[in-house]
Amino acid sequence: MKKLINNPDNVLKEQLQGMQAAHGDLINVHFDPAYITRKDPTPKGKVALVSGGGSGHEPMHGGFVGKGMLDAACPGEIFTSPTPDQMYEAAKAVDSGAGVLNIVKNYTGDVMNFEMAADMARGEGIKVQNIIVDDDVAVKDSLYTAGRRGVGTTVLIEKICGGAAEDGYDLKKLSALCKKLNQNGRSMGMALTSCITPGNATPSFEIGDDEIELGIGIHGEPGIKRSKMMEADEIVEFMMDQILNDPAYTRILKEWDFDKDDWVEAEVTDQPFKKGDQVIAFVNSMGGTPVSELYGVYRKVQEICEKQGIKIVRNLVGPYITALEMQGCSITLLKADNESVKYWDAPALTPGIRVKM
Amino acid sequence: MKKLINNPDNVLKEQLQGMQAAHGDLINVHFDPAYITRKDPTPKGKVALVSGGGSGHEPMHGGFVGKGMLDAACPGEIFTSPTPDQMYEAAKAVDSGAGVLNIVKNYTGDVMNFEMAADMARGEGIKVQNIIVDDDVAVKDSLYTAGRRGVGTTVLIEKICGGAAEDGYDLKKLSALCKKLNQNGRSMGMALTSCITPGNATPSFEIGDDEIELGIGIHGEPGIKRSKMMEADEIVEFMMDQILNDPAYTRILKEWDFDKDDWVEAEVTDQPFKKGDQVIAFVNSMGGTPVSELYGVYRKVQEICEKQGIKIVRNLVGPYITALEMQGCSITLLKADNESVKYWDAPALTPGIRVKM
Repeated sequence: MKKLINNPDNVLKEQLQGMQAAHGDLINVHFDPAYITRKDPTPKGKVALVSGGGSGHEPMHGGFVGKGMLDAACPGEIFTSPTPDQMYEAAKAVDSGAGVLNIVKNYTGDVMNFEMAADMARGEGIKVQNIIVDDDVAVKDSLYTAGRRGVGTTVLIEKICGGAAEDGYDLKKLSALCKKLNQNGRSMGMALTSCITPGNATPSFEIGDDEIELGIGIHGEPGIKRSKMMEADEIVEFMMDQILNDPAYTRILKEWDFDKDDWVEAEVTDQPFKKGDQVIAFVNSMGGTPVSELYGVYRKVQEICEKQGIKIVRNLVGPYITALEMQGCSITLLKADNESVKYWDAPALTPGIRVKM
Repeated sequence: MKKLINNPDNVLKEQLQGMQAAHGDLINVHFDPAYITRKDPTPKGKVALVSGGGSGHEPMHGGFVGKGMLDAACPGEIFTSPTPDQMYEAAKAVDSGAGVLNIVKNYTGDVMNFEMAADMARGEGIKVQNIIVDDDVAVKDSLYTAGRRGVGTTVLIEKICGGAAEDGYDLKKLSALCKKLNQNGRSMGMALTSCITPGNATPSFEIGDDEIELGIGIHGEPGIKRSKMMEADEIVEFMMDQILNDPAYTRILKEWDFDKDDWVEAEVTDQPFKKGDQVIAFVNSMGGTPVSELYGVYRKVQEICEKQGIKIVRNLVGPYITALEMQGCSITLLKADNESVKYWDAPALTPGIRVKM
């Protein structure tokens, strides 16, 4: 295992200390329990946006804390869900009275713990809604997930909902937007290499020198298929085919019903992309793939979209939701309307994403 | 070789096409010869800033083209100097009458070709100055270099000089600033893994599973020593010791003398850092190291600076000057005065670096 770390037991703490040291103008890092808040308190009356999940995916989520995006992020240990007390303390720290929206990637531990934390915060009189992101078209069930995994669309949601929250959306309206964005987003990942969690002697999974894994998850969970190495264009064609031609997808997602004062199950259906759609296209590095290769991928994504009559109106290219040092990429398309483009373009100032302030 | 590429012969062209597709709002990519210019023409009376070098170091330099940084960048083939005609065409494209400052990393091919291009542009009546960046304390002479290599300080110079150029510095004043910044900056790199240039079957250099290379160059050129794997803190201590305790360094650098109308050789000396210095600290990924590990490194850099009485007033943490997919990092410290901090903070809007506009 070759990594720039010290004792594996201290990796998360030391990385968070480094984040605080580097970005103390934008964020505050809290320890025991660990959570990251924006430097300036949540403005009075603004819904607080909170996310979190296992570490190892940086800059997500801690790097997206700051004006225009998240009010708080809860980093779990590497590839491990954060605990309810982290989420509960974060909610208490950033609620300004307008409530808290938890953006929850669909992993069993994250979902369960964010539910527990929401219940705890409600006990303190804080209005909390949880919206689940499950955008990975590669799998229906996976190692850590019932249903689809939450991946790249999360980054886009944190930006767009962040902009809408700054613009005064109340909790109900913001939750509806978050839910809509999840339905509009589809992602798929692939890996050239594996990754090693600190302290482990062996990689998360084995992959041959001439093999790639298509449909990989951000923790190295297996995907659709193992293949011999292909050219980038072939890989992108395969991934885009999965993203564009995945049929309508219906699942049951839990949310809080403020009238019934209870969790309810809601049926959620998303529809395939179609000719004439406008999209935000996101080409992401899994951590070990340099941005130069992402541009090669983006070139083909754009070509395929053009052929299909889908117009890319905004894009994001770089390492934003990673899997430690894994080489590979993911592609996310998010159907974009005026509302989402408006808040995509809204000011943001975070360690990981900056849009003109 | 596992990379997200197609035919190795087309890598650069396809990556540039992807950059154009992704960032067409900020830049224009030109082909045959290849150079990248900012979308809006250089404002009348503003000195045009141009840089360039071998590709494989993205986002440097093409990713730093845009308002507040470079007016043009010339990408060579991977790890290969760009040609004089690229530089000459770029100078002609971006000169607004106030002249061109070429920021040249100290590699033999880059220096020679930028000199030739400057002479060609002067033949067209364009005022051109070349300032060399040679900030790598690891080596005096190396595979592609006489003297020190130009590395991380280049990124900081492109930002600061970019701000000063927008603020109306004339060519003489801007050249003096660039020269001063080079004297104030010192860097060192290290590698955990090697990298492979597209089309090659084998890595640029071999490194054992339990070895690291200290003092590595951005093309995998060997450095100070090969060592067994160490903890991150030990690695940072070694690198910081080299950066902080390198003695005064005197070398001869060529520049254009507008009075004599000829190249002249100027003796340039930089001084070690000392207690009380303020610095911009830059922790850079070699491409394959994720930002999470960089934060661990930054934590130790800050601790060492504090102990030495050196104050970090600004910082940059991320992949900005890379070596393809190489895992590792580099550390740059730049002694910062009011002038450099002012222009570090100045607005910039480029694919790779964004500061509030």
